[in-house]
Amino acid sequence: MGGDDAPTVPAAAARMAVEQHGLDVVLVGDAEQLNRLAPSVPAIAASQVIAMAEEPALGARSKPDASVRVAVRLLAQGLADAVVSAGSTGATLASALLDLGRLPGVRRPVLAAVLPTEGLGTVLVDAGASGDVQAAALVASAQMGAAYARVRGVPRPRIGLLNVGAEPGKGNDLARAAYELLTGLPEFVGNVEPDLVLAGRVDVVVTDGFTGNIFLKTLEAAHSKATGGGPGGAVLLGVRGEVVVAHGAADADELVSALRTADSLASGGLWQLIGAALGAQ
Amino acid sequence: MGGDDAPTVPAAAARMAVEQHGLDVVLVGDAEQLNRLAPSVPAIAASQVIAMAEEPALGARSKPDASVRVAVRLLAQGLADAVVSAGSTGATLASALLDLGRLPGVRRPVLAAVLPTEGLGTVLVDAGASGDVQAAALVASAQMGAAYARVRGVPRPRIGLLNVGAEPGKGNDLARAAYELLTGLPEFVGNVEPDLVLAGRVDVVVTDGFTGNIFLKTLEAAHSKATGGGPGGAVLLGVRGEVVVAHGAADADELVSALRTADSLASGGLWQLIGAALGAQ
Repeated sequence: MGGDDAPTVPAAAARMAVEQHGLDVVLVGDAEQLNRLAPSVPAIAASQVIAMAEEPALGARSKPDASVRVAVRLLAQGLADAVVSAGSTGATLASALLDLGRLPGVRRPVLAAVLPTEGLGTVLVDAGASGDVQAAALVASAQMGAAYARVRGVPRPRIGLLNVGAEPGKGNDLARAAYELLTGLPEFVGNVEPDLVLAGRVDVVVTDGFTGNIFLKTLEAAHSKATGGGPGGAVLLGVRGEVVVAHGAADADELVSALRTADSLASGGLWQLIGAALGAQ
Repeated sequence: MGGDDAPTVPAAAARMAVEQHGLDVVLVGDAEQLNRLAPSVPAIAASQVIAMAEEPALGARSKPDASVRVAVRLLAQGLADAVVSAGSTGATLASALLDLGRLPGVRRPVLAAVLPTEGLGTVLVDAGASGDVQAAALVASAQMGAAYARVRGVPRPRIGLLNVGAEPGKGNDLARAAYELLTGLPEFVGNVEPDLVLAGRVDVVVTDGFTGNIFLKTLEAAHSKATGGGPGGAVLLGVRGEVVVAHGAADADELVSALRTADSLASGGLWQLIGAALGAQ
């Protein structure tokens, strides 16, 4: 029930994903509407909706029957393998924290977007989940982002730290502290400025969620296009399940991409791989 | 002597500025080379150069006869009205702090770039001078940026805070605290996301120097073009004199633009206006 044109567009996307791609999709929301819009797709009822304008954590806590909460619970209960939401990112994150929980070693989950660079693209973490973090959180982000890149087919992802200059010592206090810690990861290749990120010099680019979201939105604005973290949606990393967040303005084709992303993440076992990567550290 | 192709390109730019625009230019650096490259432009000798790779503050302190320091001292001594440097931004900033000093109420100077939006463009402060600041510093940045916008011909500049969402309460701790303080300025119109900045909805966009530099470099990367804070160069705000920082890769035409910017700022009396704006608060 989330997104600018819900439930029409999500219902259309579910039909396309089932009919054209053979995915196994369940819609969650106003069952009557959903059954009418997509008769061939099973619908599970959820009586509440968290609006975009609502305070996300409060909305999620106070609406246990919100469509996103019901969908995430299907995941927690093992009745679904992945969730796609085009609703409020904050509400989706809050629902994932409430009903799936964090992986050990994760203080705050992050959002991973895929930037359309050369080859398989570059994973941006954090694309907007957590604005105020310590340097250690960026190391966890890097590890989670690298696990995601591996599932996307990059065997040895190169990790860069988004920064205002290439040399060590560049940037703000957070970037300098993160640089020091990141040198402990074998995949770390150093600071990267925006131009090198776009040139595809790294497979994973790490930054805090505020800077990452500004970076992503600036790219989108410069290209006059809302990518919502790439055509496949942004992925929540650090929780016990696969959660994909699509742009609120995503059209049916973009939601189909997000559903296919979700399917491939579940097949790859991303969240378990992330748990193993963090535990191995 | 700063910039990728110094002193050839700065010398060529000085000649063009004198011959085509009637500006009163003095070159500072290796006098013999400069006299040969631009015989019609007076040259003042400076025996040292601060390299791009040097730690800027240390370089500026340890090299009193560096070209940028000699140039800034001409300003301090009233022998010049503005300085243009294509060398290290950090070294130029350090020289300005050493030889010009800060305006009252300014903890750290900021760099203002002009983004090529609709009309007269949008002033971005801080484009990269100070990465770790308190919310109060963003208010001073806003006031300085507004004074700059006025000198650029915008009588009532609209000020926005660069943020990841439009609503109050969005962003990281710094953005939320700055929002509260900025509501005290009559010109403040609220948070602005990158797309609205590029759409020209504000005349001044305020952020910390780390985020601002990432924002600027992302725009440059997305457009595959180094703008160096707009064709006219970036302007150092908060010191007792007009200092313009051009991109190290600026060509002669771009350096002429920077010289013309410097000329117009000196004519407008920008640094004194900034002092008055900060004192009036």
